[in-house]
Amino acid sequence: MAPRLSGEEKVVCEIKRAFAGQRSGSLRVGMGDDAALWRAGPGQEAILTCDWFLEGTHFLRDKHPPDAVAWKSLARATSDIAAMGGMPKCFLLSLALPASCTGKWLRFFLRGLRRVSRALQCQLAGGDTTRRDEILINTTVVGEVAAARAVLRSGARVGDLLYVSGTLGEAELGLRELRRQRGVGNESSNVFVRKHLYPEPRIALGQWLAKNHLATAMMDLSDGLSSDLPRLCSESGVGAQITAASLPCIARRDAKDAVELALHGGDDYELLFAVRRKNASKIATGFRGLALTRIGEITRDKRVLVEQEGRWRRLTSGGWDPFR
Amino acid sequence: MAPRLSGEEKVVCEIKRAFAGQRSGSLRVGMGDDAALWRAGPGQEAILTCDWFLEGTHFLRDKHPPDAVAWKSLARATSDIAAMGGMPKCFLLSLALPASCTGKWLRFFLRGLRRVSRALQCQLAGGDTTRRDEILINTTVVGEVAAARAVLRSGARVGDLLYVSGTLGEAELGLRELRRQRGVGNESSNVFVRKHLYPEPRIALGQWLAKNHLATAMMDLSDGLSSDLPRLCSESGVGAQITAASLPCIARRDAKDAVELALHGGDDYELLFAVRRKNASKIATGFRGLALTRIGEITRDKRVLVEQEGRWRRLTSGGWDPFR
Repeated sequence: MAPRLSGEEKVVCEIKRAFAGQRSGSLRVGMGDDAALWRAGPGQEAILTCDWFLEGTHFLRDKHPPDAVAWKSLARATSDIAAMGGMPKCFLLSLALPASCTGKWLRFFLRGLRRVSRALQCQLAGGDTTRRDEILINTTVVGEVAAARAVLRSGARVGDLLYVSGTLGEAELGLRELRRQRGVGNESSNVFVRKHLYPEPRIALGQWLAKNHLATAMMDLSDGLSSDLPRLCSESGVGAQITAASLPCIARRDAKDAVELALHGGDDYELLFAVRRKNASKIATGFRGLALTRIGEITRDKRVLVEQEGRWRRLTSGGWDPFR
Repeated sequence: MAPRLSGEEKVVCEIKRAFAGQRSGSLRVGMGDDAALWRAGPGQEAILTCDWFLEGTHFLRDKHPPDAVAWKSLARATSDIAAMGGMPKCFLLSLALPASCTGKWLRFFLRGLRRVSRALQCQLAGGDTTRRDEILINTTVVGEVAAARAVLRSGARVGDLLYVSGTLGEAELGLRELRRQRGVGNESSNVFVRKHLYPEPRIALGQWLAKNHLATAMMDLSDGLSSDLPRLCSESGVGAQITAASLPCIARRDAKDAVELALHGGDDYELLFAVRRKNASKIATGFRGLALTRIGEITRDKRVLVEQEGRWRRLTSGGWDPFR
């Protein structure tokens, strides 16, 4: 008779089964040991990042399906790798679950996790599990980038032009719609709900900008432009001026609301980056079907200002801050 | 006037201030960017591990002082690096805090974190913060080890001898005493409470065993010998026989209780390792003042058995399993 498996080992077995045979390449030892062994490619630096994804804070069990919880938990952390111009390689999953979620919920979660792991080419390398009344997730992603090619937040210089990818505010609008609609969201929900549930980190764009030395500074938009742009400016020791009319907003009847969504909406995971004026011509208006929009420029004056209907005002953070 | 700091930024500022000027060596970019940049030394592999440390599950706010919470959260994860024979290099801290803990509690926590970071020579590289009703911690530690020198759980062979470092059961006894005593534990508590609050990962021992090819398999004892030894055997595809009389127990009047503590007590973070019989003479009875004790051997029969007072019985897990 096989020895009886304990609760924690059953959860670990489910995870191992879901990812059986997926280890390869630079990941020499994955799950099952005290730690994972991984080696960056020759001439590459490792990029290290981690992200909370907590029930009640970052998602709701009755609104976010298990596969979207999996997708989003990995995509969020991977977006930080994209923002450095790097390539995701492997991740560690820390999962705390209520006993009631170790059956069907866990299976759907793992199916989603396998899918996002393949989509982002980011292998499961290990993690930690425990029991908890609420679902707690922490994801560490390890990526790589050619030595000295990573794009930091601190490289923006006075006169650089500011760009963002995609359309801003879509994920926030998706969250509003998800809260309004009945029951759990899913992939047949509308495009905004889908962007909220299954965000796509801009990995290819980040790599292209880094490889071609086009971005002087870069970060991903997770908390909203009004929270994130001041962080980029602060790290670079500069300010910025942007114009509301130039923002890539959602095309809606209420233009003012669309601007508010673009300025303050969180969870878009688009890239915000600065480009030398002389390189502006190399930034086409799009990259592989993804819009790239010039929204303003970097200034010596350290304030971050937005011009709306002819009036300049200081851009104040209206995005996501859990401690507010 | 400086722009008003948001709650999350204040917490991040406190952390940055506590670790100001500590970045050096292989860590090129630390806190403040989307992610950290780190490079393993030439010929080294990266070791990746993460660990939960959650209020109510792994520690109690009214029993564990903030600096012990910091110490233990990093020491636990670093113990996994020791168990591979590696050297800790840097860590990511994910911290979720109640608003009431962002003042004095956070300052004491950060003081402890700086101390353990120095003691273990493991630099803070980044992390994530958020607000939560309970204190949640997840720690990712990155270490390095010479390529192909890491000691895995899977290398034990039939006939190898089994060893453990230190004395087993001390941390569990310390937890019992901490629960019994009034108020918060501290460094002037007795030796067992101290071992529970401030465990010391066996980094030097692990490196010595790996460097000299002495351990064929190794892991750290976090959940207790009765939970952990079967895991090492399972990964190696072998069994084991140990004798209760050989265990390095706490010297107490009640010998039976001491054996139970040694078999099932968790949180010791001692090393369990297997050694080829021909190398037994190279394992002295101690390493730099730390006892090394032979407790049994690896068997072809895949059961894990313990002999106590002349009778053999199957060793069943009595250690820590959060899902039980």
